[in-house]
Amino acid sequence: MANASPPPFVAVLAGGSGTRFWPAGRTARPKQCLALDGDDPRPLLALTLERVRPLVAADAAPWIVAPPDLRRVLASAAPGHPASAWLAEPAPRNTAAAVALCAFTAAAADPRTPVLVLPADQHVAPVGLYRRALKAMLARARRSDAILTLGLVPTRPATGYGYLRRGETLPAPKGLAMNVVERFVEKPDAPKARRLMRDGKHLWNGGTFAFRADVFLASLARHLPEVHDPLAALFARGVPTARRLATVWHQLPSISVDYGVMERTERVEVVSAPLTWDDLGSWDAAARGRQADAAGNCLRGDVVAVDARDCVVDAEGGTVALLGVEDLIVVRTGDAVLVARRGRGEDVREIVARLKAEGRSELL
Amino acid sequence: MANASPPPFVAVLAGGSGTRFWPAGRTARPKQCLALDGDDPRPLLALTLERVRPLVAADAAPWIVAPPDLRRVLASAAPGHPASAWLAEPAPRNTAAAVALCAFTAAAADPRTPVLVLPADQHVAPVGLYRRALKAMLARARRSDAILTLGLVPTRPATGYGYLRRGETLPAPKGLAMNVVERFVEKPDAPKARRLMRDGKHLWNGGTFAFRADVFLASLARHLPEVHDPLAALFARGVPTARRLATVWHQLPSISVDYGVMERTERVEVVSAPLTWDDLGSWDAAARGRQADAAGNCLRGDVVAVDARDCVVDAEGGTVALLGVEDLIVVRTGDAVLVARRGRGEDVREIVARLKAEGRSELL
Repeated sequence: MANASPPPFVAVLAGGSGTRFWPAGRTARPKQCLALDGDDPRPLLALTLERVRPLVAADAAPWIVAPPDLRRVLASAAPGHPASAWLAEPAPRNTAAAVALCAFTAAAADPRTPVLVLPADQHVAPVGLYRRALKAMLARARRSDAILTLGLVPTRPATGYGYLRRGETLPAPKGLAMNVVERFVEKPDAPKARRLMRDGKHLWNGGTFAFRADVFLASLARHLPEVHDPLAALFARGVPTARRLATVWHQLPSISVDYGVMERTERVEVVSAPLTWDDLGSWDAAARGRQADAAGNCLRGDVVAVDARDCVVDAEGGTVALLGVEDLIVVRTGDAVLVARRGRGEDVREIVARLKAEGRSELL
Repeated sequence: MANASPPPFVAVLAGGSGTRFWPAGRTARPKQCLALDGDDPRPLLALTLERVRPLVAADAAPWIVAPPDLRRVLASAAPGHPASAWLAEPAPRNTAAAVALCAFTAAAADPRTPVLVLPADQHVAPVGLYRRALKAMLARARRSDAILTLGLVPTRPATGYGYLRRGETLPAPKGLAMNVVERFVEKPDAPKARRLMRDGKHLWNGGTFAFRADVFLASLARHLPEVHDPLAALFARGVPTARRLATVWHQLPSISVDYGVMERTERVEVVSAPLTWDDLGSWDAAARGRQADAAGNCLRGDVVAVDARDCVVDAEGGTVALLGVEDLIVVRTGDAVLVARRGRGEDVREIVARLKAEGRSELL
C-alpha cells in the first residue's frame, strides 16, 4: 500500500506579515521576503524553498500559499518558482484556514496524500538533519492516523514559543526521536520556561506539521467545523475558483491551526532532532544569527561606527553613522529609520500600531 | 569729535563649516544655515542679523563675510539681505584673516571707523541687553585705543570656551560691566573650569570684538605682520578686486584672531553682561536650548517615540521611530542618519573625518 501512496503535498505558508521587522518589513514586503537568516543574503522564503525542495519529485515544486496581493513580491523572493505551484488564499486568515486549504486541495487529488505544511520564515540547521526529520514526519504520516509535528530541543528558556510534552517513545530513524505528544504547553512565563527547558521532557513546537489529508480533515471536521464545513461544501463540487473560494473565505474564523486543531486532536506525534532553530520573530532573533565583529556589532549596508558596541544595523538606501552607542538595533529602509534598544524587538509592533492609529499607511 | 565719527562697520563672520552638526551640517550647508537656536525655526544667520541690525543705520545692513561658494546657501538663510552687504573672503582662512579683511575694508572708507565683528552662529539672550552691550563696546571703541571683547558670565564650568580674567574696573552703562582684560585663559580642563567659574573673576570670551579700524590694524601690524603686510600692500592701492584679493589670500596663515592678535594686544577691555550665551558648538549644545517634552525628549520632524527618554531627534526627509532608548541624539538628513550618545556631540567630527578619509565626499 505504501508503494501505491500518492506523492507528498509540501506547502510553505507564506502569507505572514512583517510587522515586527518594521521598517524593513512592510505590508507590501513581508518578513519572508527579507534576508533575516544569519548572514545569508537570500530572503527567508528562498531558503525555505531550497530546504524542502528535495522532499518533492524532481519535476514538482513545493507549494507557496499566500494571498494574491503578495504574489509579486514573494515571486521576487522565490526566483524561478513555477507559476503552477502557487496556492492563493484569498486573504491572510491565520493558519487553521491556510492549512485547511492545503488539506482540501491535496485531498481533491487523493485523500490519502501526505501533506507537509511549514512556515516560510524560520532559521533551521543543519539542513541535512532537518530534511531527514521532515521525511520521517511524512513517512510516519503516510502509514498512521496521527498528525505529526516537528519538535525542537530547546536551547534557551524561550518565552515566545509554545512547548510540547513528550510522552511514549516510538521507533525513529537514527539521529531522530519520535514520541507521542502528551500535551501542548502555551507560551510560558520565564520561570516556567526555565523549568520546561531543564526537565528534558519538553520540546519547542516548530509550527511544522505532517498528516494525511483525510486524517487532518477528519480532525478539522470534529474540532473546527466552522472552518471545515464551508470549505468541504465548496470542494465537494471540485477545486473552487479563486472567486468562489473568496466568497467563503472571509466568513472563516481567524484561528491558529495549533489552537484550533492540533491541541484538540487525539493523536499527535512529534519528530524531534537536535536542530538549531529560531522562528526569527524579531530583530533580536535575527541578530542572534549574525556574525558580530570584534566590537560586537553586526553591520549591514553603508554604516560608519565610531565607539559603537553590540549594535545591529541594517542600512538600506542611505548611510547610518553610530557614535558612542551600544546595544541598539538601527534599521533604515528608505523613508523610515528605527532606533530601538536591543531586547525590545517584540515591541516594534507598538511602533506599527501607533503608525496605524495615526493613519500613516504610507509607512506600513 | 564723537559727532564726526564715521558710522560703524558691523560684520557677521559667516564662513564657518558645519562639521560638528553632520549630517544636517554639510560643506554646502554650514551650521549658520541651520535652525539650532532653541526651538526657533529660523537659521542662526537670520537670528544673528536680526540682533545686530539696530546697530547700523536704517538704510544700511550688517556685512556678511563669507567665501563666495557659500553665498547662495547663506542668502537663503538671510532673506532680503542686500547684495551690496556681502564681503567675500576668497576662502575660509580662520578669523585673523577675516577680521583683518573687515578692518582694511572699513579703514578704506575711514581709518577711524568703529568695527564690530561677531560670529554668525551663537545663541544669546535677552536680545535687548545684548544689543546694549554691543553698543557699549562700539561706543568705547570709538573713544579709546582699546580693543573691546564681549565677556559672558559663566553659567557652567565649560571646557570648550576660552576665558578672560577681569582686571581694573572701568565705568560702564547700567546693567553692564567694563574691565581691562588681565589675561586670556586657554580652554581649561574640567577642574580648572570649575575654579574659573567659582572665583567670579573670569568670563567666557565670546569671540565678538569691537575696535577702531586703525587700532586693530596697528596691533595686527605689530603682532601678525604675515597677515597685515600683504593685505596692507593690496589695500594701499584701494579696495582690491576679488581676483587680486585671492592671489594674496591663499598665502595668509590660518590663525585665529584670538590667538594671533587679541592675546598679544596691549590693551583689551571687556564689556560683560549677565547674558544667556552658547556658542552652539555641537548637537549637545543645541539640545540644551530646546524645550523638552514630559519624557525629556526634544523631537523635530516626523518622529514616533515609544518608551524613549531624553532623546534629541531631528528628522528631515523621513520618519524616525524610537523604541526603548534614552540619551540619544538622532539626526536624519536625506541620505544620512546619525545615532549618537548625548554628550558625544563634539566627536561627530570623528565621523566626518572617517567619511573624508574614505573619500565619501557626497556625504560631506
